[in-house]
Amino acid sequence: MEKSALQKARIDYAPKLPTSLQGSVKVKEGAPTQSVDDQEDIKKLFPNTYGMPVVEFEPSNETQTCEMNVGVILSGGQAPGGHNVITGLFDTIKRLNPNNKLYGFILGPGGLVDHKYIEITEDYINDYRNTGGFDMIGSGRTKLEKIEQFEKGLEIVRELNIKALVIIGGDDSNTNACVLAEYYAAKKYGVQVIGCPKTIDGDLKNDQIETSFGFDTATKTYSELIGNIERDCNSSKKYWHFIKLMGRSASHIALECALQCQPNICIISEEVKAKNMTLNQIVENICNVIAYRAEQGLNFGVILIPEGLIEFIPSIGKLIEELNDLLAAHGNDYKGLDEEAQREYILAHLSEENKQTFATLPANVARQLSLDRDPHGNVQVSLIETERLLSDMCDAKLEQWKEEGKYKGKFACLHHFFGYEGRCAAPSNYDTNYCYALGTSAAQLIANGKTGYMAIIKNTTKPTNEWRAGGVPITMMMNMERRNGEMKPVIRKALVELDGKPFKAFEKIRDKWARETSFIYPGPIQYWGPSEVCDCTTKTLELEQE
Amino acid sequence: MEKSALQKARIDYAPKLPTSLQGSVKVKEGAPTQSVDDQEDIKKLFPNTYGMPVVEFEPSNETQTCEMNVGVILSGGQAPGGHNVITGLFDTIKRLNPNNKLYGFILGPGGLVDHKYIEITEDYINDYRNTGGFDMIGSGRTKLEKIEQFEKGLEIVRELNIKALVIIGGDDSNTNACVLAEYYAAKKYGVQVIGCPKTIDGDLKNDQIETSFGFDTATKTYSELIGNIERDCNSSKKYWHFIKLMGRSASHIALECALQCQPNICIISEEVKAKNMTLNQIVENICNVIAYRAEQGLNFGVILIPEGLIEFIPSIGKLIEELNDLLAAHGNDYKGLDEEAQREYILAHLSEENKQTFATLPANVARQLSLDRDPHGNVQVSLIETERLLSDMCDAKLEQWKEEGKYKGKFACLHHFFGYEGRCAAPSNYDTNYCYALGTSAAQLIANGKTGYMAIIKNTTKPTNEWRAGGVPITMMMNMERRNGEMKPVIRKALVELDGKPFKAFEKIRDKWARETSFIYPGPIQYWGPSEVCDCTTKTLELEQE
Repeated sequence: MEKSALQKARIDYAPKLPTSLQGSVKVKEGAPTQSVDDQEDIKKLFPNTYGMPVVEFEPSNETQTCEMNVGVILSGGQAPGGHNVITGLFDTIKRLNPNNKLYGFILGPGGLVDHKYIEITEDYINDYRNTGGFDMIGSGRTKLEKIEQFEKGLEIVRELNIKALVIIGGDDSNTNACVLAEYYAAKKYGVQVIGCPKTIDGDLKNDQIETSFGFDTATKTYSELIGNIERDCNSSKKYWHFIKLMGRSASHIALECALQCQPNICIISEEVKAKNMTLNQIVENICNVIAYRAEQGLNFGVILIPEGLIEFIPSIGKLIEELNDLLAAHGNDYKGLDEEAQREYILAHLSEENKQTFATLPANVARQLSLDRDPHGNVQVSLIETERLLSDMCDAKLEQWKEEGKYKGKFACLHHFFGYEGRCAAPSNYDTNYCYALGTSAAQLIANGKTGYMAIIKNTTKPTNEWRAGGVPITMMMNMERRNGEMKPVIRKALVELDGKPFKAFEKIRDKWARETSFIYPGPIQYWGPSEVCDCTTKTLELEQE
Repeated sequence: MEKSALQKARIDYAPKLPTSLQGSVKVKEGAPTQSVDDQEDIKKLFPNTYGMPVVEFEPSNETQTCEMNVGVILSGGQAPGGHNVITGLFDTIKRLNPNNKLYGFILGPGGLVDHKYIEITEDYINDYRNTGGFDMIGSGRTKLEKIEQFEKGLEIVRELNIKALVIIGGDDSNTNACVLAEYYAAKKYGVQVIGCPKTIDGDLKNDQIETSFGFDTATKTYSELIGNIERDCNSSKKYWHFIKLMGRSASHIALECALQCQPNICIISEEVKAKNMTLNQIVENICNVIAYRAEQGLNFGVILIPEGLIEFIPSIGKLIEELNDLLAAHGNDYKGLDEEAQREYILAHLSEENKQTFATLPANVARQLSLDRDPHGNVQVSLIETERLLSDMCDAKLEQWKEEGKYKGKFACLHHFFGYEGRCAAPSNYDTNYCYALGTSAAQLIANGKTGYMAIIKNTTKPTNEWRAGGVPITMMMNMERRNGEMKPVIRKALVELDGKPFKAFEKIRDKWARETSFIYPGPIQYWGPSEVCDCTTKTLELEQE
């Protein structure tokens, strides 16, 4: 593998571990736990993995050894640091017994089902230490949810004498990890399943999980780009930049980038929903800022738009919900239809209220909402060009205001979408250490006989040696939600909380950012240099932990 | 000004200067020079600034002082390092005499004409040391080319007792700097004009100018993003990424990014033109690679597309040339027409051959070619969605091949355009030093009585103290070219040379990159750390200087 100078230099970095994970560990167990909601339902669905205690690792003086082969799976979208979860896992299981083997299932959960795997060896893994991407073993979006899959997976698990599977994924993948753990426990197969909290979207967090890995690096990468565009904007002073940001439903990425870069406007989907705002109101709010700045001679600015926005506009959200159910129910006869026939099909099946909303949407947006869902039944929001939709609507409104004499500026705009640029960035020092510790923690959960747990690391705004490591039962984070038209047990997705500190901090200052030009230019992620430059975490985490 | 941690830390960086610029200098003059072509025409147009020698600075033991107020102008698109040209200029004129003043004209050449300026003071400038952007004084695209503008500018030059103007710009802006120098010299106004080679596009280089500033940082920023996308691509293994890159007509940026990242395909416009390739041939070449990789089970890849491509496809290039002249001649009656009428207007005025080409273009591309030109009369190539045009055409061809049984893969694609993300990035260590040296050189050209010169720094692949500083007469780089329908004296644009070392290196290896997956992931620009990571220059410059 040919490498860049940075790749070569980073391979030599030794990730820092919390004191508790540096050698042998013992387990401290807490009290029995409850799921965050729908306790009776969850308990019934997970009789063998419900109610287990939160565990924390403490240093131990005893020599620790354990024979265990482990299988690891990367599930879903890439997030910086995934390779370091695997290196942490690898180094720990080898330390527990040099004969232990780590197997990587290829291209995601499908690799387990189809028996596609490699043994991860010292030689092989060294090329991937402290690197971005999931290319060490690849990732995929196959959902592990059917008994046949679990049984098919068991065959290869037995063949390779695997004691435990580690599934590195987002909320849905960790939900499935727990379903698998429960199934293997119920069948007394003696195969453990451990999850790891991965997603750049930042929506897998709660009282137990401070942050999902990759959020730090991805938001820093996007903030570098946003800052560069802000600086460009402030130099030529002639464009409004509409920047859409990845992040699925939640607006954590947009909010974090706003806190880092101080753009003129950042839309938070969760606020749009809470205030029951219409698309027209959003457009009017943006135009008010554009018109105010134009009066000051400032015909430029930067606007951040979370990719999930469209789902959170209540009328459109209702429409999407019905469309999700409709497409889940009628998927196959619908798929073969051409564009016009699909539109007619949808209009024929929608309720009256949603039919009206659908009919009034711009044609390309209506089309995009009618496309195939992802494997979890969700709209592929990243394909909807919300940034163009909004700027087109702003343009029309400003034209109207111009005619009415309410606006006298110039409005020229440029569009950007940042997503794929950040998912495989080389992990920041934070994610490098955090992920290595998560992998180490996962190995220790296995060595200590746990299943149905997610590896966790807490206290991460403190120096690394003060970080706290352990595991949390996945059922503890679950509730019942409607998915693909059915009620299912799922890990509750963490949306931006409007009374949380990050949003409050933003809310307090945003009018100033809108009126003035308060841009901050974070620049590229640094791996060396002053600690305040290269070791800082996200503003979100700083505010939440302060 | 609120600052990020990186901004704060970078302000303290002391740029490194070549030995010859660290103190007092003396001037070593070469032989009289000739323009690169059309010597008689250029000599006639520039009687006072033609034929001057190349000059080089050498260290001197004598104390050097000079009374001089200077005005500085940022012209055209932003490029990383512009602020450092100004800080180099500032520090040097203050060293030559603390009473010297530096004035910045606001928002580009228009600031000189409209008498909009600020005095750049120590307090003011310190916030901008080693930062990206042109926001210190702003930039603009007003062309300085009319006598009224020169005379209007002279008023404020006299009022502020300015001895010389420094114009930081690309090929067109430096051409205009020379026209202004010639005019002031002919009129014996005693006002000097010095240019500085700025452009991320890399097309302002020749035997005298190794590279234009900003190219290093911008290509590293784009390469960071391309590398991240390559890693994403190689992890999920399911998309073809079509990435368009800024760079105007020339393909230097695309070529440099290809050398850094090793994508599967990189189109070089200059080669397309030299080989007289049609759009269909380009598409077929891409599809051959896609089909070959599909046979190996590799239904993914990364393709780089220079934004100027469309102009270099000979049939389309001829069309654009005629359109440029047509729009220049008929600009005003054309502008008021609606879309359909503009199309009819164009079809009515085009020659038969170009009419046919125009009629066969996809509607949106034809539309984009019919839009307003930039102030230099060029098509705004960054607005043409070549990346979508190509992927749509590939999709259609692959469908056809599938029907013919020649292709059995899956083709899903994603699009990106990188441009604004790199123009205002924080300058790399290379650009930080290079620009500071250019500013210092410009100040010394003024102090040594030169006009119509461009500041230059050579030998920049060597350690900074070995860099060589001086100036080159702008007329030396000129020839006559057709612009806006007229022959004009202009600095010859440097396109990618097909027998140059960078292209040759690429040509030799590209088939391997197409067939295999040879991605390299450069990662973000580093300011600290191992020298091979943070002090390297571009592959283009390395190869050219080797």
